[in-house]
Amino acid sequence: MIDTDTTSPVTRRFRPPAVPQVELRGFWGQRADVVADRTVHILYDRCVAAGMFDQIDPDRTAPGKVVSYDGGLMTSQMFWDSDFGKIIELASYTLFRKPDSTLEAKVDAIVDIYERLQQPDGYLNSWFQRIEPGLRWTNLRDTHELYNAGHMIEGAVAYFQATGKRKFLDIMCRYADYIASVFGPDAGQIRGYDGHEEIELALVKLARVTGRTDYLELAKFFIDERGQQPHFFDLEALQHGRDPAEYHFKTHEFSQSAEPVRDQRKVVGHAVRAMYLYAGMSDIATEFHDAALETALEGLWADLTTRKMYVTGGIGPSRTNEGFTFDYDLPNLTAYAETCAAVGLVFWSSRMLGLGPNRVYADIMEQALYNGASSGLSLDGSRFFYENPLASRGDHHRWEWHRCPCCAPNIARLTASVGSYMYGEGSNSLAVHLYCDSTANLDVGGRKVEIVQTTEYPWSGSILLQVNPERGTDSFTLYLRVPGWSSSYTLSINGEPEVVAMNDGYLALHRDWTRGDEVRLDLAMDVETIHAHPFVGDDAGRVALRRGPLLYCLEGGDNERPIASLSIATTKGAERVALDGAPGIVGLRLSGYADDMEAWGGKLYQSRPAATKAATLTAVPYYAWANRAAGDMQVWVRKAPE
Amino acid sequence: MIDTDTTSPVTRRFRPPAVPQVELRGFWGQRADVVADRTVHILYDRCVAAGMFDQIDPDRTAPGKVVSYDGGLMTSQMFWDSDFGKIIELASYTLFRKPDSTLEAKVDAIVDIYERLQQPDGYLNSWFQRIEPGLRWTNLRDTHELYNAGHMIEGAVAYFQATGKRKFLDIMCRYADYIASVFGPDAGQIRGYDGHEEIELALVKLARVTGRTDYLELAKFFIDERGQQPHFFDLEALQHGRDPAEYHFKTHEFSQSAEPVRDQRKVVGHAVRAMYLYAGMSDIATEFHDAALETALEGLWADLTTRKMYVTGGIGPSRTNEGFTFDYDLPNLTAYAETCAAVGLVFWSSRMLGLGPNRVYADIMEQALYNGASSGLSLDGSRFFYENPLASRGDHHRWEWHRCPCCAPNIARLTASVGSYMYGEGSNSLAVHLYCDSTANLDVGGRKVEIVQTTEYPWSGSILLQVNPERGTDSFTLYLRVPGWSSSYTLSINGEPEVVAMNDGYLALHRDWTRGDEVRLDLAMDVETIHAHPFVGDDAGRVALRRGPLLYCLEGGDNERPIASLSIATTKGAERVALDGAPGIVGLRLSGYADDMEAWGGKLYQSRPAATKAATLTAVPYYAWANRAAGDMQVWVRKAPE
Repeated sequence: MIDTDTTSPVTRRFRPPAVPQVELRGFWGQRADVVADRTVHILYDRCVAAGMFDQIDPDRTAPGKVVSYDGGLMTSQMFWDSDFGKIIELASYTLFRKPDSTLEAKVDAIVDIYERLQQPDGYLNSWFQRIEPGLRWTNLRDTHELYNAGHMIEGAVAYFQATGKRKFLDIMCRYADYIASVFGPDAGQIRGYDGHEEIELALVKLARVTGRTDYLELAKFFIDERGQQPHFFDLEALQHGRDPAEYHFKTHEFSQSAEPVRDQRKVVGHAVRAMYLYAGMSDIATEFHDAALETALEGLWADLTTRKMYVTGGIGPSRTNEGFTFDYDLPNLTAYAETCAAVGLVFWSSRMLGLGPNRVYADIMEQALYNGASSGLSLDGSRFFYENPLASRGDHHRWEWHRCPCCAPNIARLTASVGSYMYGEGSNSLAVHLYCDSTANLDVGGRKVEIVQTTEYPWSGSILLQVNPERGTDSFTLYLRVPGWSSSYTLSINGEPEVVAMNDGYLALHRDWTRGDEVRLDLAMDVETIHAHPFVGDDAGRVALRRGPLLYCLEGGDNERPIASLSIATTKGAERVALDGAPGIVGLRLSGYADDMEAWGGKLYQSRPAATKAATLTAVPYYAWANRAAGDMQVWVRKAPE
Repeated sequence: MIDTDTTSPVTRRFRPPAVPQVELRGFWGQRADVVADRTVHILYDRCVAAGMFDQIDPDRTAPGKVVSYDGGLMTSQMFWDSDFGKIIELASYTLFRKPDSTLEAKVDAIVDIYERLQQPDGYLNSWFQRIEPGLRWTNLRDTHELYNAGHMIEGAVAYFQATGKRKFLDIMCRYADYIASVFGPDAGQIRGYDGHEEIELALVKLARVTGRTDYLELAKFFIDERGQQPHFFDLEALQHGRDPAEYHFKTHEFSQSAEPVRDQRKVVGHAVRAMYLYAGMSDIATEFHDAALETALEGLWADLTTRKMYVTGGIGPSRTNEGFTFDYDLPNLTAYAETCAAVGLVFWSSRMLGLGPNRVYADIMEQALYNGASSGLSLDGSRFFYENPLASRGDHHRWEWHRCPCCAPNIARLTASVGSYMYGEGSNSLAVHLYCDSTANLDVGGRKVEIVQTTEYPWSGSILLQVNPERGTDSFTLYLRVPGWSSSYTLSINGEPEVVAMNDGYLALHRDWTRGDEVRLDLAMDVETIHAHPFVGDDAGRVALRRGPLLYCLEGGDNERPIASLSIATTKGAERVALDGAPGIVGLRLSGYADDMEAWGGKLYQSRPAATKAATLTAVPYYAWANRAAGDMQVWVRKAPE
């Protein structure tokens, strides 16, 4: 089942490289440095400060319940194993980038603690071992029990890939083996799944790194069972003396289990849960060549991207369910658009590329990565957004910590691992999904190929790729993505212009590649205005600004007046400018109008419109907002008639 | 201190007539009938169903705490006396309009219960007598103790005016006398005030009906003390073993007590509290000719009406504090704009007219009354809005009851008592603030004058007033308001055109009035577009529609497409139309555009704007929305360039 070199369409199945295979420079190199230099240490220190070690360390006194919210429904302590999993995964990526023996020793110490905590049968969950013992596997709907396991598996895989150390991987394999014995269709097994998806995609990672196909089968079991009738969560509740109707979130749509996953076409419920499920489904579709899953995924993708996604790639407008509501419900000011959900969309999008290069998926991956996800981490790597609204009246600020600390390590681990999302490795091909100054050591059906990208992307659309097969000369297909936002492009190989047919938004360059071959791709990168579907009420009469993959916004500190009183005249003649306090970041300056406040007077309402006067507007990339002076912000800006 | 006939400017001091002095027909007559026929009975039945009688009746077993919310901070039971007070006030108004011996017997029964409940010292509060005994006067900040007394006083005054029965009035006088003994500046007295203002304006009503100036002095004491240092609520907390810093609402701005009231210029905190305070301040300013209070009130008025008021007259945008935030923070979809707050604005505005006829106040009174307040009651009188947003995606519906049932009786008592807001009685003058088909029996310095209004207002701007002095001929000034929304008017007396100077938006007609004199006022009542201050982000590029005092909105059921996809071309040629399912209500039909969905296609975002095609838009008065088919709604509609 592990991908084999067969005929089309299987030849178009792709796997991501491991993070250590890609050395980032340029835009993402700088972001990864910030994460390695600051964020990972901040997050580790927060774990200490929150008392998380007291919970997991069997040699300390268990602290009892110390953090709770939502009327006692759950506590973030239930997720603390997942936080350690994410921290270890993040540390793995930064250790590869910047060796740090002190940090590595800290990770080893956490691994040692978990080794001591693990029960003889393999079970490993600090909450149910030390805070609520005796309740193991009694409430999968609400308690994130397998979710925790999933994040720890991801951490173990990353740590093994970064350091070669097997201890944590072995611990998690023992736990996974135990989970495989507990869950399944046989008598005496639990025929169920977790309320918060995550274990599925993690088991695929574990299978790929260990070659263990039984982990794939277990992931597939969780996916196959989800939403079947009689409903597992109802049976589980009854078995453990709870009323199934007494469910805070009312409907199993919250956990995407209201119907079997292959029947699902509508994106529903908690946004992060949804993304993690679809990511796992995509992996299983890739690994099992599962057409019914692919059909469902295509329907879900269309539903999300044509009716339920912010232009930032942010998703899940509602705070109430941290998730989806109804079609075209995309309010800007109150957008929940959790950082984790945009990160999850990157996860899902990247895994859709496992089915083959297709910019339908890569464009959205890029859109969410550069905008709605990256906005979650401050430029200096020390502060975070949980919510990512598309407008602010100046009262939305980054926080240093959060009672539910899921987003900070999530955006940090994504930022530090972007290299893994840049490429797809096929059996006789390579796909370049994302561009960034970098050096990658990739695998094409067992042969090594180095790809050196030289580019100032995303600030420029000029990309030079040097292709260096290890064997000197090698024949394979190099797929290059031409982003949908680019109105035109030119391609040359070793200085000679090339015209190549484009399929699904990728140029397929098949040739005998010789060490030192140079491919130059020049993407037109104009300043564009984007209009939203007329049913999106908040965006009517407004435009968003985009240049390349970056969405821009107007921020109070860069503009003279409240943003609400400004309108865009045209993007013609828009200039790229440096921004005060944001070195290296390209701002945009363009012409517009400001409502004339002197002519308006002091009234709140009157029967004539405001007069306008010419004004210069300055826009900043959305991901970089709220890093300088506090103030108001709008992504969707009024458009004056031209 | 009770208003006396002295020289200017005191001669411009006005008092409202009692509700029974004005017989409503026409628009408000129909609304008052609905309240008398349905609402008052529904609200009484809800009191029974909620078990409120168990709490107040000393002959029943006290129920203990049965309703709580906000993490136990407070329970609506604490306000139940106020609900009975409002129900009695409401019933008084409807009993005058439609005698109903059954309803009157129910009110008498409630009064009898309170008579039995009242303690020998006069104290009367069912919560502190029967649910939390022993805690009397220990937490004025949070428990609405004097607020309850205020509403019961208002009920007692109204019941006396409607029926002539003194029992409840005497009960509340005994309680007020006791309060006067407890609160004051002397040793052994509590030098404090209530966290929720209401007692102040109620004591003024009680003073006016009883002629007892000591009740005015007590009201003035509460107003004078508010916000003084050291802060009463802090002292109170310390005295009763609580930490003053442990305050859910963080700042005393919540209760408008962060500074002395005469120093206040910014409208802050809980919106209903604020309105009730300013109403009380206005009464005291009128009664005591208090220039410092007037200055504060003018500043607060300017702050509210030029920076913090929805075009509906709704106020208090935030759910968090049920109140005010920052300047120009007027989001439409999430507007809290509690019904009680708009009702409170009517209270305040009407009392500013005590200082003299001035349409600055009367216009806003009318705006809040017809729009943001009246929207709180369904056309059939059976369902209610607590919140009054200015936009809905179809998910905002009226409720039948609410855990905090303040708004339903509040809008009902206002609707049934509109006659009292129509006029001001001066020592030698009458002011007509509002127009409605009606007959009023008014008092001008002790002389009786009947005013018969014949008009279809607010559907038409033509008003005929017949002036009938009891003594046949009488000399006094009749002030007629010319609303600020009217671009022109004509005036005639007994068929002869008259030109009269306008002062503060009122025409002052001074003459010897003879029984049968007819004044005709014709107000231009065009369909207008209103623009909001450019700093109000949600309203930029949009207009609201107004005709006369009525604000209009677009409602889904009347229009073909989601409102978000519509824009207004012009109000020229706007037609008045009947609306399906809303007999007697004048809708508007005007020309506009609809985004062309077929031309747009299926994308969520694209780089060109939507094409538009001509469309006919149908608008409904805002107060009447959400009474027919469910659907989306917008007050602020996109305006296409003309």
